[in-house]
Amino acid sequence: MSKKKGTRWERQLFNLLWEHFGPCLRSAGSGCTPKPSPDLLASNGKRILVIECKNNKKEVIYLTQKEIFELNLFAKNFNAEPWLAIKFDNKGWYFIRSDKISKSKGESFRVSLDDLKKEGLVFDEFVGKYEQQKL
Amino acid sequence: MSKKKGTRWERQLFNLLWEHFGPCLRSAGSGCTPKPSPDLLASNGKRILVIECKNNKKEVIYLTQKEIFELNLFAKNFNAEPWLAIKFDNKGWYFIRSDKISKSKGESFRVSLDDLKKEGLVFDEFVGKYEQQKL
Repeated sequence: MSKKKGTRWERQLFNLLWEHFGPCLRSAGSGCTPKPSPDLLASNGKRILVIECKNNKKEVIYLTQKEIFELNLFAKNFNAEPWLAIKFDNKGWYFIRSDKISKSKGESFRVSLDDLKKEGLVFDEFVGKYEQQKL
Repeated sequence: MSKKKGTRWERQLFNLLWEHFGPCLRSAGSGCTPKPSPDLLASNGKRILVIECKNNKKEVIYLTQKEIFELNLFAKNFNAEPWLAIKFDNKGWYFIRSDKISKSKGESFRVSLDDLKKEGLVFDEFVGKYEQQKL
């Protein structure tokens, strides 16, 4: 997982949110503080989205319990929705609420492209441009 | 106005907000994007604070119309309160709502320590630890 590529995708999502949702802030990053520091925070004046971005070449990502816990806790106290934004190479963005993830593999959480196709949202669904069509 | 010192004060306020208010995010900074990018964003689950930090050795700060306009616009669309957090050397923090600032000097806005003593809030008032006692 390339950090440089991660920053590029994070900036792309930042711009998408500004264009199609509302004001968005990019975090200065977790290197600066031991406090939970999600990547993006956006609002359209009604919904507040706290977002952790993940990207990978392979069609699966792993998250630690600490990552999920801190994202959920930040969102709960901010009165916001906790989301994971996931970008695989040559695929569009997928979004999944982090407080809905239950599958775990040992100490870590695993989310695959197949999981996201079933349970995730694409960007327009995520920002509420249309309702999810899945049955 | 030293940028390094500004970052130090911004981090101090970031930590104060985590301790006495709620989750807080520090912005990656305006260098990364042409979009409005306030320094801090914090919430206690009820109030959302969008904060631009300013510091100066002298007991006065100047802000451009663009700075004030962008802070107010970000906050309005985020459904948040727009604040300036001001730190002068050897003085505590002062806070003033940027949508309440009307004094202007040509193209820029001027806020002095005297103004803040009259119209600003100290930290405990800002985070609602007690009501403002001014008459």
